[in-house]
Amino acid sequence: MDKPYVVGIDIGGTNSVFGVVDARGSILYSGSIKTGSYADVNDYVAELAKGLKTVIDQAGGVDMIKGIGVGAPNGNYFNGCIEFAPNLPWKGKIPLAELISKAVGGIPVALTNDANAAAIGEMTYGAARGLKDFIVITLGTGVGSGIVIGGNLVYGHDGFAGELGHVIMRRDNGRICGCGRKGCLEAYASATGVARTAREYLAKRTDESVLRELNPDDITSKDVFDAAVKKDKIALDVFEDTGTILGEAIADFVAFSSPQAVIFFGGLTKAGDLILDPIKKAVDENMLKVFAGKTRILFSELKESDAAVLGASALGWEAK
Amino acid sequence: MDKPYVVGIDIGGTNSVFGVVDARGSILYSGSIKTGSYADVNDYVAELAKGLKTVIDQAGGVDMIKGIGVGAPNGNYFNGCIEFAPNLPWKGKIPLAELISKAVGGIPVALTNDANAAAIGEMTYGAARGLKDFIVITLGTGVGSGIVIGGNLVYGHDGFAGELGHVIMRRDNGRICGCGRKGCLEAYASATGVARTAREYLAKRTDESVLRELNPDDITSKDVFDAAVKKDKIALDVFEDTGTILGEAIADFVAFSSPQAVIFFGGLTKAGDLILDPIKKAVDENMLKVFAGKTRILFSELKESDAAVLGASALGWEAK
Repeated sequence: MDKPYVVGIDIGGTNSVFGVVDARGSILYSGSIKTGSYADVNDYVAELAKGLKTVIDQAGGVDMIKGIGVGAPNGNYFNGCIEFAPNLPWKGKIPLAELISKAVGGIPVALTNDANAAAIGEMTYGAARGLKDFIVITLGTGVGSGIVIGGNLVYGHDGFAGELGHVIMRRDNGRICGCGRKGCLEAYASATGVARTAREYLAKRTDESVLRELNPDDITSKDVFDAAVKKDKIALDVFEDTGTILGEAIADFVAFSSPQAVIFFGGLTKAGDLILDPIKKAVDENMLKVFAGKTRILFSELKESDAAVLGASALGWEAK
Repeated sequence: MDKPYVVGIDIGGTNSVFGVVDARGSILYSGSIKTGSYADVNDYVAELAKGLKTVIDQAGGVDMIKGIGVGAPNGNYFNGCIEFAPNLPWKGKIPLAELISKAVGGIPVALTNDANAAAIGEMTYGAARGLKDFIVITLGTGVGSGIVIGGNLVYGHDGFAGELGHVIMRRDNGRICGCGRKGCLEAYASATGVARTAREYLAKRTDESVLRELNPDDITSKDVFDAAVKKDKIALDVFEDTGTILGEAIADFVAFSSPQAVIFFGGLTKAGDLILDPIKKAVDENMLKVFAGKTRILFSELKESDAAVLGASALGWEAK
């Protein structure tokens, strides 16, 4: 009998969420542990293995599990390692796929970064079903990307391809990015970028805004969204300008791989048309003629609370 | 017996050059006709077929030819058509692969754009032998690109992927590009872009330059090169700044596909270290840390007079 399930593990800086998933993309059993509580990766893996054992037993035991997929920051598909992840407690190069596989009795484990996992998740269960050429852009604390060409995820020669959050969008007077360079897409179009834009506009402009009631340092992208829903002009402008810079970037990305679709994923997509409309407008205005009107701009169809685990789990079907 | 030869045809706005090529990349027999002399594509194909017959007969006849590869501006690999090529005399969508195949007794013909042909040529016979992930940037009248990922050329969903000459490098006050948009790489880093930069510097600056002896409108990239060889400061600055913008662009391209190498091809590479040194410097200064030092910056190893035909011919091995 073919093994009917896979396990997905999404490792974030705060939580590690995992679940047993069936071929239709339903999460049957799930659990989580705190990533940040384990300074030693061996302690982390031991605790994770306990949680995995529980959900795997619920699903009928290890013989039911085809493979385990892991989505993790700075995860390298080629060697199964997390490499120098700034937001995780373990330093250097951690052979996490191997450690997890050993801890769960040898179930094969495949690992990649979270944005690549999102792309595989969209292809397997989401908005990219049936598509062979698309790009997923994740809009979270940072901006990540997973690129699929001809049905295959692009890993590059070293496993690190698809860092589209670090394409330079503003060469003159660009914002400092977390990567140490200036003007990266991520510095503008991430959740933190949105909050930063709001703080800049509040400092620079004098018009009224409900955001002025908050301590500027405490403003989050959620606050900006809430203000925009109330038609706050500054908040609306923040989403408009964030969408515009994303649309400009997409027009350049299309010149690279000419995808059928670009799919946005993650927290900022909750802003809906507030950000989607300016993205589409800027894509249209900036696209090279030969590509005009050919690339669909979509939001992820995966339920956000499940998407990261589903994306990671999709990798489990190919784990060896 | 396996058929031992292929034919390559490079179609440019001025000349169409063709040759019979063996598996080692030697051009055995060659010829050319004037592209621009045939307003009707059927007349062009008839004349081309005559020339092809001559070289094919020299090589022992059609039974010796495995396939024909064609590199042409705006050539679409998927349908074998030239589509709306601004520099060719035939308007609209021309099914050139089919026309040529019929005219030479049914030898299979594959067609792609000239930059993609260059990439396949480098992979088959040139600097990219053995590489699976690389980008070829052609620096000619325009700037083109051929992208190889996992050993496969990236065509995109519509056959037009790899328009890296039209990635926006200067969003503020960018130069008008031939595509109608502003700030494209091609507007700066093509041969015409180099001449344009020289004219700008001559108008803006007051220092001496041998280029001032020329009518500004007549200055070519060759003039700028000749002046740079004589250590003319303005000409040296033109190559320095052209290399810098190319290096900035490469750093962004690497974030997309993380290639092993970027290979430059075409007229401007004759400038040698005058342009290669600033490219490498700008790549180093602009590269995201995770990619630092991993991507080689190379010049084509193909003899320029042969390269376009060789590149096109390489496609002939896979023609069906």
